[in-house]
Amino acid sequence: MNLSIAHLGPPGTYTEQAALFYLNWLTKSTGVEAMLCPYPSNAQTLRAVAQKEAQLAVVPVENSIEGSVTMTLDTLWQLDSLQVQLALVMPISHKLISCAQSLENIKTVYSHPQGLAQCQVWLEKFLPSVERIPTNSTTEALLQLKQDLTAAAISSQRAAQLYNLPIIASEINDYPGNCTRFWLVSQNHLPISQPTVSECTRYTSIAFSVPANIPGALAKPLQVLARLNINLSKIESRPTKRSLGEYLFFIDLEADASQPHVQSALAEISSYTEILKILGSYNVLPMNALGEAVSG
Amino acid sequence: MNLSIAHLGPPGTYTEQAALFYLNWLTKSTGVEAMLCPYPSNAQTLRAVAQKEAQLAVVPVENSIEGSVTMTLDTLWQLDSLQVQLALVMPISHKLISCAQSLENIKTVYSHPQGLAQCQVWLEKFLPSVERIPTNSTTEALLQLKQDLTAAAISSQRAAQLYNLPIIASEINDYPGNCTRFWLVSQNHLPISQPTVSECTRYTSIAFSVPANIPGALAKPLQVLARLNINLSKIESRPTKRSLGEYLFFIDLEADASQPHVQSALAEISSYTEILKILGSYNVLPMNALGEAVSG
Repeated sequence: MNLSIAHLGPPGTYTEQAALFYLNWLTKSTGVEAMLCPYPSNAQTLRAVAQKEAQLAVVPVENSIEGSVTMTLDTLWQLDSLQVQLALVMPISHKLISCAQSLENIKTVYSHPQGLAQCQVWLEKFLPSVERIPTNSTTEALLQLKQDLTAAAISSQRAAQLYNLPIIASEINDYPGNCTRFWLVSQNHLPISQPTVSECTRYTSIAFSVPANIPGALAKPLQVLARLNINLSKIESRPTKRSLGEYLFFIDLEADASQPHVQSALAEISSYTEILKILGSYNVLPMNALGEAVSG
Repeated sequence: MNLSIAHLGPPGTYTEQAALFYLNWLTKSTGVEAMLCPYPSNAQTLRAVAQKEAQLAVVPVENSIEGSVTMTLDTLWQLDSLQVQLALVMPISHKLISCAQSLENIKTVYSHPQGLAQCQVWLEKFLPSVERIPTNSTTEALLQLKQDLTAAAISSQRAAQLYNLPIIASEINDYPGNCTRFWLVSQNHLPISQPTVSECTRYTSIAFSVPANIPGALAKPLQVLARLNINLSKIESRPTKRSLGEYLFFIDLEADASQPHVQSALAEISSYTEILKILGSYNVLPMNALGEAVSG
């Protein structure tokens, strides 16, 4: 079996880095051959799997500073056939990349809006009067640098190496523990073996809409989870897009949907919701497996 | 009294339009003189009020398609002294603005990421191979057009008029009911008279953090609200930025914090939360008052 893994490109994005981790892990653990396929947006990445152009997609779900990647959540809600197979949490360490002689020469900084947002305190301190220009990916920001010696980009160490560009400042994240969670997603039926780490917590992600304007509409599903002692590791609301004040909820549970008490919780929750979707039950790939994947 | 109202600039943004509504309404209802002060970001707009450079700020909170404006929420959580005084919901009708002869000649589309996101289905249908370039505001997107006849921008009718640029396509929103909620924010003590509309619902916005990794940590505050029959019109989670999986919650209640049953609900909620902030109790400026404000 030769798998293709869709991800946000061009090469050098953090999402490509996460896709490489998954690729190496899959090859090591299952022996399958896989190749990476870059797409111009995370939505197109997911649609490629829904339309069977690719078997797998790697998408960012959430960053520890900037929160949910809303395009990923909205697209998963729209596409019915996709299931989350695995998760990984990758540290994000931004670098300032530039051909400028020194920081004083920099007039513009390019990056993905998430990159600019994750370094805003550093930028205000060290480059207060510099213009910040958003780009579609952190890699795209690098395209400006070779012809403009007053431009800088916020991107990864790997991207700097890949495009042979100098790093002018490191550790520019506003919060040192900056990390992003990435999901590996496929169509329902694809069998992916799970990491066999015994202490691994298994997660289940669900999404649902509730009847509008009813006090307690969200409290009821949450009470079910609290009563059954199922921990909720994340909750996110998204607009239904029909009308202001109508929401979908994305919830991550520290539980496996195949367990009987989780199944009965989900059955009870479905009686309080309009539409309930189970996005998948999955493990988080442990960091030591990642370490091996990096060097692999 | 001469008030200054800070807002995202340059002139022609939707936020400036909302600020103009508020300015006209304030002048009509209270007789005070006010002037608009543009700032380069919503965060800087709010900081201007916290630092007493401006008395009032107008900031977008939530769009019906793209959801919360997270920079507004995160900045309000950081700045302790600000209170929401009023809200308004403004319809957002995007136009495609360009000096191109026809749609076929367009190679790039510029807009704020929210503008690009709110028209993505239209863009995929009518301009599928066009490059989408994000800008810091919808107005900034217009700066590209005069020198480049293959460029287009997504912005408002008012911006097209203000900068004397042609509208090449109207009704390009993916969802017809597209609207954005804007808050008028000031320091604690500023007295703003409220609209005297009897059937007006009064809202209270709160934000809180909960102890991490406790099942039911969010369910408990929501149960208090459900038991007292207080409707929750919005809930949004944001990362604490300390560690992945730790959240703040922003909740809008259909209730007035001065009412006794709401006060006891808030007191009970504070026993389940780490930090609880009351962002304000306020009315929504009715649409007929807006109509007058536009023509005024």
